[in-house]
Amino acid sequence: MIQKLIENIKKTNAPIVVGLDPMLSYIPEQIQKTAFAEYGETLEGAAEAVWLYNKKLVDAIYDLIPAVKPQIAMYEQFGLPGLTAFKKTVDYCKEKGLVVIGDVKRGDIGSTSAAYATAHLGRVAVGSQMLTPFGEDFATVNPYLGTDGIKPFLDVCREEKKGIFILVKTSNPSSGEFQDRLVTGAVGEHGTDGKPLYEVVGEKVAEWAASCMGDTYSYVGAVVGATYPEMGKVLRHVMPKSFILVPGYGAQGGKAEDLVHYFNEDGLGAIVNSSRGIIAAYKQEKYAAFGAEHFAEASRAAVVDMIEDINRALEQRG
Amino acid sequence: MIQKLIENIKKTNAPIVVGLDPMLSYIPEQIQKTAFAEYGETLEGAAEAVWLYNKKLVDAIYDLIPAVKPQIAMYEQFGLPGLTAFKKTVDYCKEKGLVVIGDVKRGDIGSTSAAYATAHLGRVAVGSQMLTPFGEDFATVNPYLGTDGIKPFLDVCREEKKGIFILVKTSNPSSGEFQDRLVTGAVGEHGTDGKPLYEVVGEKVAEWAASCMGDTYSYVGAVVGATYPEMGKVLRHVMPKSFILVPGYGAQGGKAEDLVHYFNEDGLGAIVNSSRGIIAAYKQEKYAAFGAEHFAEASRAAVVDMIEDINRALEQRG
Repeated sequence: MIQKLIENIKKTNAPIVVGLDPMLSYIPEQIQKTAFAEYGETLEGAAEAVWLYNKKLVDAIYDLIPAVKPQIAMYEQFGLPGLTAFKKTVDYCKEKGLVVIGDVKRGDIGSTSAAYATAHLGRVAVGSQMLTPFGEDFATVNPYLGTDGIKPFLDVCREEKKGIFILVKTSNPSSGEFQDRLVTGAVGEHGTDGKPLYEVVGEKVAEWAASCMGDTYSYVGAVVGATYPEMGKVLRHVMPKSFILVPGYGAQGGKAEDLVHYFNEDGLGAIVNSSRGIIAAYKQEKYAAFGAEHFAEASRAAVVDMIEDINRALEQRG
Repeated sequence: MIQKLIENIKKTNAPIVVGLDPMLSYIPEQIQKTAFAEYGETLEGAAEAVWLYNKKLVDAIYDLIPAVKPQIAMYEQFGLPGLTAFKKTVDYCKEKGLVVIGDVKRGDIGSTSAAYATAHLGRVAVGSQMLTPFGEDFATVNPYLGTDGIKPFLDVCREEKKGIFILVKTSNPSSGEFQDRLVTGAVGEHGTDGKPLYEVVGEKVAEWAASCMGDTYSYVGAVVGATYPEMGKVLRHVMPKSFILVPGYGAQGGKAEDLVHYFNEDGLGAIVNSSRGIIAAYKQEKYAAFGAEHFAEASRAAVVDMIEDINRALEQRG
């Protein structure tokens, strides 16, 4: 699937991913009305609104982008109907030829991580059948539990040719609280590295990545926030074979100029995410002229601008 | 909800929780046959088998225990039908008066953590309605993203009087890979603590806990594995007002004697989980005489033995 991601990026000349993270407050009133008219003000109604919104968005932008990243929390908040909308969105985006990154940030002890890996990237045995539970192409994974929480994902990635992005340095303001701590070794060890934890995690990602190689890049990527560009520059070198999924561009404050060092010399190796900045573009002054009824066209314009912004920065890098 | 947990523990004299983590391989063939006969070898069939199994288990043990902890990964692996079985299990256990700890290990940046908190502990606004997505009483949470990933959970806990257990030191073999690293401060700071990361996380849990107090214990608890008793002893003192959820007893190797220091002097403050050791008891030599058809009675016997084992150790502690 890493090959397909690379092919899609080359085809579209767009190293970006659109985060499908719908909030009801983003969804134009007319769509909500249509959904509530059919299902009432219920979880089903909310999920239908989300699905109608996503479908229009995807129809308007799928030819411009290589991948989408639905954030499952935004669907989970609408319970089972919400997760049904998640699954419909995954399936629809795959039909449209997009790579689907399930932003699920799962991670647990071994046998439980195996179940999560199966749920999102694999197939489950039921009697004599092998069935696909959610079927994303990539998933995001939390590393706090260490290697035996990651290994089941690696096994499924190899078997299914899927991929993961492991949280290394997240984009949020307090990500440094634990991730930036300087570490000096483990209990009972004498280590004097003095490296920040995110770098230690990055080194493990590089190890895991080496064990799961595609043709040029690994099935194992990393998440590094756009909001910490100096750390991104270091981590690029720590994990040379990993694609970096970069959240935090746009709404969270990350700028294209800051992101050029997340890419390798081949122009690949990073994929920059924008969620709200694209899917709720019509709420920004810049795209307000489209109006709520043309929200999807506003999103298309925002995608065009984002691609231009990032490619311009990449061309200008030293 | 922390009050209800304490009441339930006192009523049953059982500081334990049963992990409802069904694998198809645990489910007696007769139940699988019944489910597959109705739904075929499909995700729906697997989910029905899980639900039939859970219901029999809960019916057999609910009067002995204060709480259950369904591990959502085991349901997610069967896709949407699996999550429907999760929701049915949550609802059924609540009907039976049990406290339900959703073992979901969620955690993300602020707005996304807010959606997860809503999904599992809160209510979501849909038009003029406030609806309950999954409705567990507690959820487990991953701290890797720091305070702004935790705060939305605290807000929902206060509002709904629900609770969380934050991963501090997990029970798995490689948990030390990052959690045991000695840390000395953050980048740009001069700190010379030299404490392991789990202790730093524990100190943050104590802070968060202090901001979310029930009558005697906080809404904010911690997860500390039974497999690291020395660390559990330290963490008990670091987080005096937090209940400790203790996985790793039984199948993973934790012994009752090792766990007494996870409790406070009041005999409260910890709740010991067993999953496979209870729900698949009939597969152990000790309970094999029950046979697969009486698996639920085997589980009841295993619950009685576990309660006795832990209470005996607590009585004998110095």
